[in-house]
Amino acid sequence: MKKTTLLILYLCCILITKAENGYDLWLRYKPVADKALLTSYRESITTIITGGSSATMKIVKEELYAGLSGLLQTKIDTNISTPRNGTIITGTPQSSLLIRNAGIATQLKDAGEEGFVIISKTINGKQCILISGNTEQGLLYGTFHFLRLLQTSRPIRQLHIVSAPKIRLRMLDHWDNPDRTVERGYAGFSIWNWHTLPTYIDQRYIDYARANASIGINGVVITNVNANAVILTPAYLEKVKALADVFRPYGIKIYLTARFSAPIETGRLKTADPLDENVQLWWKEKVKEIYTRIPDFGGFLVKANSEGQPGPQDYKRTHADGANMLADAIAPFKGIVIWRAFVYSHENPADRHKQAYDDFVPLDGQFRSNVMVQVKNGAIDFMPREPFHPLFGAMPKTPLMMEFQVTQEYLGQGTSLVFLAPLFKETLDSDTYSKGKGSTVAKVIDGSLEKHSLSGMAGVANIGNDINWCGHPFAQANWYALGRLAWDHHLSSEQIADEWLRMTFSDNADFLKAATALMLESRDIIVQYSNPMGLHHIMGTSHHYGPAPWVNDQRRPEWNPVYYHKADSNGIGFNRTATGSNALAQYFPDARKQWEDSSHCDEKYLLWFHHVPWNFIVKSGRTLWEELCYQYYKGAERAGKMQDTWKRLQPYVDKQRFEQVSMLLNIQHEEAIWWRNACLLYFRSISKQPIPAQYEPPGKTLEYYKQLRFPFAPGI
Amino acid sequence: MKKTTLLILYLCCILITKAENGYDLWLRYKPVADKALLTSYRESITTIITGGSSATMKIVKEELYAGLSGLLQTKIDTNISTPRNGTIITGTPQSSLLIRNAGIATQLKDAGEEGFVIISKTINGKQCILISGNTEQGLLYGTFHFLRLLQTSRPIRQLHIVSAPKIRLRMLDHWDNPDRTVERGYAGFSIWNWHTLPTYIDQRYIDYARANASIGINGVVITNVNANAVILTPAYLEKVKALADVFRPYGIKIYLTARFSAPIETGRLKTADPLDENVQLWWKEKVKEIYTRIPDFGGFLVKANSEGQPGPQDYKRTHADGANMLADAIAPFKGIVIWRAFVYSHENPADRHKQAYDDFVPLDGQFRSNVMVQVKNGAIDFMPREPFHPLFGAMPKTPLMMEFQVTQEYLGQGTSLVFLAPLFKETLDSDTYSKGKGSTVAKVIDGSLEKHSLSGMAGVANIGNDINWCGHPFAQANWYALGRLAWDHHLSSEQIADEWLRMTFSDNADFLKAATALMLESRDIIVQYSNPMGLHHIMGTSHHYGPAPWVNDQRRPEWNPVYYHKADSNGIGFNRTATGSNALAQYFPDARKQWEDSSHCDEKYLLWFHHVPWNFIVKSGRTLWEELCYQYYKGAERAGKMQDTWKRLQPYVDKQRFEQVSMLLNIQHEEAIWWRNACLLYFRSISKQPIPAQYEPPGKTLEYYKQLRFPFAPGI
Repeated sequence: MKKTTLLILYLCCILITKAENGYDLWLRYKPVADKALLTSYRESITTIITGGSSATMKIVKEELYAGLSGLLQTKIDTNISTPRNGTIITGTPQSSLLIRNAGIATQLKDAGEEGFVIISKTINGKQCILISGNTEQGLLYGTFHFLRLLQTSRPIRQLHIVSAPKIRLRMLDHWDNPDRTVERGYAGFSIWNWHTLPTYIDQRYIDYARANASIGINGVVITNVNANAVILTPAYLEKVKALADVFRPYGIKIYLTARFSAPIETGRLKTADPLDENVQLWWKEKVKEIYTRIPDFGGFLVKANSEGQPGPQDYKRTHADGANMLADAIAPFKGIVIWRAFVYSHENPADRHKQAYDDFVPLDGQFRSNVMVQVKNGAIDFMPREPFHPLFGAMPKTPLMMEFQVTQEYLGQGTSLVFLAPLFKETLDSDTYSKGKGSTVAKVIDGSLEKHSLSGMAGVANIGNDINWCGHPFAQANWYALGRLAWDHHLSSEQIADEWLRMTFSDNADFLKAATALMLESRDIIVQYSNPMGLHHIMGTSHHYGPAPWVNDQRRPEWNPVYYHKADSNGIGFNRTATGSNALAQYFPDARKQWEDSSHCDEKYLLWFHHVPWNFIVKSGRTLWEELCYQYYKGAERAGKMQDTWKRLQPYVDKQRFEQVSMLLNIQHEEAIWWRNACLLYFRSISKQPIPAQYEPPGKTLEYYKQLRFPFAPGI
Repeated sequence: MKKTTLLILYLCCILITKAENGYDLWLRYKPVADKALLTSYRESITTIITGGSSATMKIVKEELYAGLSGLLQTKIDTNISTPRNGTIITGTPQSSLLIRNAGIATQLKDAGEEGFVIISKTINGKQCILISGNTEQGLLYGTFHFLRLLQTSRPIRQLHIVSAPKIRLRMLDHWDNPDRTVERGYAGFSIWNWHTLPTYIDQRYIDYARANASIGINGVVITNVNANAVILTPAYLEKVKALADVFRPYGIKIYLTARFSAPIETGRLKTADPLDENVQLWWKEKVKEIYTRIPDFGGFLVKANSEGQPGPQDYKRTHADGANMLADAIAPFKGIVIWRAFVYSHENPADRHKQAYDDFVPLDGQFRSNVMVQVKNGAIDFMPREPFHPLFGAMPKTPLMMEFQVTQEYLGQGTSLVFLAPLFKETLDSDTYSKGKGSTVAKVIDGSLEKHSLSGMAGVANIGNDINWCGHPFAQANWYALGRLAWDHHLSSEQIADEWLRMTFSDNADFLKAATALMLESRDIIVQYSNPMGLHHIMGTSHHYGPAPWVNDQRRPEWNPVYYHKADSNGIGFNRTATGSNALAQYFPDARKQWEDSSHCDEKYLLWFHHVPWNFIVKSGRTLWEELCYQYYKGAERAGKMQDTWKRLQPYVDKQRFEQVSMLLNIQHEEAIWWRNACLLYFRSISKQPIPAQYEPPGKTLEYYKQLRFPFAPGI
């Protein structure tokens, strides 16, 4: 070979093999590996024409340039004005004459306000690719989608893509505190460096916005629902404004959590009663102050009268009174109020499962039109596996917003590989039967079932200041999945995993096959070794790290694991049938039917809804006790096998991330054994039955597991 | 040009212009820019022969390979066994026959245990470069030094370098808490992720060790001096062991802070009295437990009986009693105890300036031979400018260790460009006169003045989990300077700035001239706009951010700024002469002489040692009040000019870091004006004299500045 060729190969080598720290997420834009495909891409893409010169169009141009340069390893000319063969033409009908005259009006109509059109067209006799949308925001989404096609090795010869989001508000909720701790955060600390804002704009803020835009996220709540009113003070609003200015060209609106007692804490009022005129006035002034700085401010997210947060019930008012007061203040500016339905109270002796429904269903129809009620996917609290929340379908007059948890509070936190798309899909695909068969949760929250124009899906972010954003390299996939499903909940978990893996690691077929399988079974595995058969909320107190089914000394009954598993000498499980708490009655009859009989109940939810005798015979023919043992041992065994699978993938993964994941899978396997042993030793002490002899006995005692303490576990 | 040439240029372009996030510190190994130099380097360096296969030698080989590949952009063959022209031969005399027979025994002798030899030699008729040391650690330092020669464009044709460190313990002290907050940390949070240790080894740990080794740091205290005993529990010692295993091949020993009351808190004893047998036994057992895990554990750093920390005085014992008890426990393992002299007590009415001296001088000669007393550079607390600590020279029988602060607690924290080498040098070059003229602080702490074999210099680290490690891109220079000066305190600030700039940014001559000047004057500038003329400790309470000379309501007198500036209707300053606190008497007569007469006192320290009337005429001919106004205005003006200088350097700096520094210089200028206005408005309210008309009047009121609050300022 010639010297120069060698040098090129060497330089390419440096570019490709440089250790990857994960900062680039799924936007790595590495050279297309398949030679034939690369050639074909290079033929189809030669130049770029960008219509318009706004901040967003500048981003479109830069992203295309960076993406194509990286993927195709050629220079892409962006300074042409007449289409050539292979020109990418981007623009809205308003900003680009070429787009306006391209005859794609029908497609653009279907794309709606935020959607996009990507289409192959002959323009002036030249084969071009058009990327367009009715708004620059839509066009930006189209740009990222086009790059994704290349990143995932899709054909681009005859493109005809029209895509519009199924859900209007596609949001990330940050539980970030002003001191930069992150509640339930396992990836370091908050990326918002309040101290150096507004003057210092961290590159992170820009790259965060880019990443969100690439998956269609269009709203972010930057503060914790357990809120601090300091965010509403002028000094902090200046900081918020600086972030809003960064996010705006990426199509992202900022929302803040509003501490209900803020008028007292920062406004010197004596009350926060929503029916008090001075309180109403205070919020009106505050909202005006916010919009003066941030004209496109999204609105407020509120956690009220839950887990100690202040709220309207402190003044004998309803959640609707509270939400409507804020809604009235913000309506003139087209802002919205997102009111959380995650409420429970230790003064209420009812099964916690039932309290949100009891509180909110009577309020259906009483909320202003700019109020959404945000409902967690399940009625307890982001459990590893949870039946859908009975509120879905039960408040037809109110637009309900979905709240998923992307951060893995109960799902292995920062040290476990758990792909959450299957969990999200499980809820979305659940049938509420509220308007007959096919009334899925997805249709409730995308607004189609009840014809709501407001619709939303939020995920509690798993983002922190770790270099790779999410701590676990695979946790990035959950951020990605949230965005993709909010855009289109018809996407399958497999499609999402495949896309993400290709962009994040490699599009080698062997790699993809094994890695996709690994991701797709990962959530089942952690359920199996931690909370099998419908067990739930049996984790460590406060930090929620690891197992602690024995805890029974917490102030509120529903903070104790024993409240949830109710293991006794007879059996185990929470009777939520008519003979128990009757939480099942909150579901529509056809939904309820699948769970109400313990002998037919899906065993995934058996102990969620039933208290079952230890010797109850389950479908496998084993007794319940034996089945629990089987599940825990099987789950831990499968966790161990994840390590083997990963080891085989070493040839396809850069050294740094390969080793990161290897070490984390080691931890996960240790944790799986810990869950298995601690839970079975504890339940054995109650069931008085032995762990079957075919299983390796736990090497440590129950007392050992009970005395473990984690005073500095993250995310509290 | 040919297509291939274009492509090479393009790929090089990508490599060079890729945004730099600062993670790589001064170890970027970018291609040598000067063509002629590159050619000459490529001729001189062709291949590598590495003797030995230990973990350290593996690092030597990998570092050389990565460094040379990056710098020279050629493939360096590491698989040869016979020297060629341009072979780099590395090894110790033990591990390499080539080195053993190279005839460099004399040079190796001079290099000592940790030093290195880099020498050009003809071996078997081939022109080679030898890098060697008596230990692999020395050899590793030599490797980094050799790479530094290339990084800083030095000639390498006729190398003959023998270098040995002047100071034995070259340390970084982390004030990192187990919850990952960092006391006085302004670069995010602790890089120690205790939760995922010991199994997960963050790449940061490795790169941290690399960076330290590259500047000769050989010891790190990984926990805060305000200590938490949890670090001494078995679970945490396992985590410490994991870090020690990472650091060992880089020649870095781990030290821990020992909370004096640990036997009570984690050991169930009722006392921590150092003369109690059970306490002594507890520490002996604990030390044994540590060394079982970490055979090369360095020892303990202790802050006792200071600012609320427990200590031997709680039991009416002396600091020597406490230190010796630990020293006896650790002596069998060759560990050492570093006992801090930073003590003051609110029960002691004496000038805080005097208390450490009063406590420690009487103990000179009473410490075990494996105890060092660690003394801050000045007697108050890392002030922007402070006369050297009177303890230096006053404890001839005790090896004194220097404690500098690398983190910029009082020097603009995370938002100011302040190069600290001039501050370090100012102290090191100060003459204590303890054994006559020339008894510099440097000679005290390097052990040469009193022939101590133990010697040490520590810096309180400025490292956090920000991507660029130190927050401010220029703060990296202070980490670098600490290491370089601990190795060789004869290096000038200018040399260090020049080296660091070349490696971190560019070796363009125009850039270097302006950027070096910027760095060298930066510390003078911040002193001028914040604490001119010897003013000190007038910053905000608790977080120490910004000015607050008016504060007078703190519990302890010496926590109040008014205690330090003592401004009254007559004048301003702390009288530390014989008519005042007489702290001056703690200095040797020739040192004292320079400061004791207010009319001859160096004006940098005027208000440090004297209470001076407002109308006192200073050297400029202005009154003291006018001079204060002049200094504050001049300082803020110079802070503004730093922005202009930086703007001119844009062509030489990558976009990301250029903008980072620009934004930070904006903040610094705002802060400079804040310091100027707040201080002058406050002092004006006492002096009752106007700010001279030639200065732009402060745009805000004193009340405005007084009401500013920073509840979430970092580093508390």
